[in-house]
Amino acid sequence: MEKENPKMEQIVSLCKRRGFAWQGSEIYGGLGAVWHFGPLGVEMKNAIKRHWWATFVTRRNDIVGVEGAVLMHPTVWKASGHLESFTDLLVECKKCHRRFRKDHLQSGKFIGGKATEPMQCPDCDSKDWTAPKDFNLMFKTFVGPVEDEASKTYLRPETAQSMFTDFKLVLDSSRQKIPFGIAQIGKSFRNEITTGDFFFRSREFEIAEIEYFVKPGDDEKKFGEWLDLWKKFYLDLGISENKLREYEHPKESLSHYSKRTVDIEYKFPFGWSELAGVANRTDYDLSQHEKFSKKDLHYFDEQTGEKYIPYVIEPTMGIERIMMVAIVDGYKVSDGSDAREKGEVVLGLSPVIVPIQVGVFPLIKKDKLPEIAREIAEKLLQRRIRSFYDEAGSIGRRYRRQDEIGTPWCVTVDFDTLKDDSVTIRDRDTLKQERVKIEEIENYIFAKLNLS
Amino acid sequence: MEKENPKMEQIVSLCKRRGFAWQGSEIYGGLGAVWHFGPLGVEMKNAIKRHWWATFVTRRNDIVGVEGAVLMHPTVWKASGHLESFTDLLVECKKCHRRFRKDHLQSGKFIGGKATEPMQCPDCDSKDWTAPKDFNLMFKTFVGPVEDEASKTYLRPETAQSMFTDFKLVLDSSRQKIPFGIAQIGKSFRNEITTGDFFFRSREFEIAEIEYFVKPGDDEKKFGEWLDLWKKFYLDLGISENKLREYEHPKESLSHYSKRTVDIEYKFPFGWSELAGVANRTDYDLSQHEKFSKKDLHYFDEQTGEKYIPYVIEPTMGIERIMMVAIVDGYKVSDGSDAREKGEVVLGLSPVIVPIQVGVFPLIKKDKLPEIAREIAEKLLQRRIRSFYDEAGSIGRRYRRQDEIGTPWCVTVDFDTLKDDSVTIRDRDTLKQERVKIEEIENYIFAKLNLS
Repeated sequence: MEKENPKMEQIVSLCKRRGFAWQGSEIYGGLGAVWHFGPLGVEMKNAIKRHWWATFVTRRNDIVGVEGAVLMHPTVWKASGHLESFTDLLVECKKCHRRFRKDHLQSGKFIGGKATEPMQCPDCDSKDWTAPKDFNLMFKTFVGPVEDEASKTYLRPETAQSMFTDFKLVLDSSRQKIPFGIAQIGKSFRNEITTGDFFFRSREFEIAEIEYFVKPGDDEKKFGEWLDLWKKFYLDLGISENKLREYEHPKESLSHYSKRTVDIEYKFPFGWSELAGVANRTDYDLSQHEKFSKKDLHYFDEQTGEKYIPYVIEPTMGIERIMMVAIVDGYKVSDGSDAREKGEVVLGLSPVIVPIQVGVFPLIKKDKLPEIAREIAEKLLQRRIRSFYDEAGSIGRRYRRQDEIGTPWCVTVDFDTLKDDSVTIRDRDTLKQERVKIEEIENYIFAKLNLS
Repeated sequence: MEKENPKMEQIVSLCKRRGFAWQGSEIYGGLGAVWHFGPLGVEMKNAIKRHWWATFVTRRNDIVGVEGAVLMHPTVWKASGHLESFTDLLVECKKCHRRFRKDHLQSGKFIGGKATEPMQCPDCDSKDWTAPKDFNLMFKTFVGPVEDEASKTYLRPETAQSMFTDFKLVLDSSRQKIPFGIAQIGKSFRNEITTGDFFFRSREFEIAEIEYFVKPGDDEKKFGEWLDLWKKFYLDLGISENKLREYEHPKESLSHYSKRTVDIEYKFPFGWSELAGVANRTDYDLSQHEKFSKKDLHYFDEQTGEKYIPYVIEPTMGIERIMMVAIVDGYKVSDGSDAREKGEVVLGLSPVIVPIQVGVFPLIKKDKLPEIAREIAEKLLQRRIRSFYDEAGSIGRRYRRQDEIGTPWCVTVDFDTLKDDSVTIRDRDTLKQERVKIEEIENYIFAKLNLS
């Protein structure tokens, strides 16, 4: 078994063929940098979101969830600084008139296209550019039946702002005390100038964010704790440690709201790229919203009698990027040295985020084997274990189909089952087969999932 | 206990105070008809989505899920007919210049505002209107760094279209055969002219849709089956049958794609209103996309050798409307005739969609009771039962807090627990208390949830 560095073409091909992801609006030639997720992709995304939510919201007493809207009042973006500062420098090729991000051209790496000389047009090779101008990455739209400046607003480029604007509403309804966090997973939109690398850099994506409110002075310590928890999240999913690194943003290139930002990067086939980040947003956002809304957003500490605007540590990650790093990192091809044939693909995904946790097969389609297998699959579903019944093709072929999509366990109902009420459970990684009583399958799987 | 018809003010107040829902961008005076969901609201929405998905996708072999994008290629909306036909007739008051939907003014009921005479302005009482004109309800935006006609597209007003454009991609990757369905839950956006009734009619909402593909000729029978399943969904959630009715759209007012549409309506405090619908979209959408994309979207039936464009039955429901009907229908106030005090509120929600399924309390905060209670809460979470640990205030107060948000069971750890390893489980509806062994709590709850 080789753990190779897969090429992006292999990943793209697997994702499309097996229904993880494909280009949006494909029958119309696609819409740039917008992706759709197929039957397995949506199950995997749902599993990732549930796992993230369970880890950081449900199983912590100090974090509550919210769901803000994509459409917010335009003053939100004025107060947050996005209207002025959420921009990239855009330049236009004077020869072919295509537009690019200046920093991408300067780095000599045009994302999603061919590598070129710094500041050379990837399309026509010209080096003649217009003067750079600020391009705001927020999508614009109009709310209500009149299309004018007053009705103009933007699709949110991050979910964070609703957690600041609703800070007091959450505080009043949830009885939380500082330090505490508000978490959100939601669609966000960025009108990227240059896009690419499959669904790595999309114009529409889901982001998972926490705004963790602390007393000023406690922010630097809490920053370190969150950075550790953030790295742990990827390591617990089995992502290769030697392909993860931290990137500390230099002071001079920090976002307008940030005192410190550290990204977690992964070594993708297209280079080191950002998976997640932790930022110290200080009291910037709450202070700005207090100023623009003229509402009091101070926190009153009942124990000390102090009133202050909390500092905010913001750990964020992209849901689709979790999906992509798991698939890229887990992609393995057999070299024939194990029980697999050379060339067979295994997706070594963590059992908590796989689309299917247990494949359930009758050895053949007769003698009640299908009925028993279906019943097992249904029972597992009732206990929230993602099972999938399959009776099509040889048993070997069914194993291979599940290996390729990362299914960690396959249960096979055979003729012995009729005598001993037991089944065979095959492990994706070790290829070992164990004999387990039907009534024990559920506990066996829960134990493997480390949940018992 | 009275099961009263609550006033919307009571619902709105409860929702805000306990963190179910409040207006979006509230600190800036709100953004019209856009809502945010608080800590309990997001848990309830997540539970609703999981329940819907489990019912119609995971536990059926003939339906697979997908996740399309909000942003699609503009030709999608041309082909689907939305660009031309997804409009309301808009009129403007010549005196105060406010704009309204003509049909709302004609019915004499301006949604979200005061009732008026037909065609009388709800704001200034004038009856002088501009000629009606078509107003397209899709939000407009621009994709990419150039703002022109070519880059103009729309936020999806429904999720359906990606299930038609990706029909072949799903078919190829999922091995489904007709009849089968594609399901999706996702954000949709409609730039409603008049809005209101709390989060009932919002500009941004989540919709759950199935496109069920059948052989032409099988459509009318399948329509009936889906309508039955759709009603059953609400009845299984415990919604009052006498407040549900069907509304058959008259032929002359059917949407441009529909052969037949039936809505399921509920008698809300603001009148009979649509919860859900089933439409027979025929082969309209697939034919249109075939025509505009010039791709073959015919289905090939391997068994009969026939090639045809499938007919589509489309059952849909709004996620936030499931939430609202459950809260409105479940809202009860004690008249003092039961063990509760007059005026105490109980939310009679189905255990599958409540934000919290089990409250876990130590009777008091000493002698290891908190540790035992925390451990029970954690164990339940591990088995995917939504538990919540609470130690604040008297036990009676903690029960009332849980009653008001619909928590069906409360587990109390008391001094006897130290001796007999048992706890008291209180039922929200019967108010009965049962003594249950700690190790049996999980099975007790699963049995109640009808999942064992």
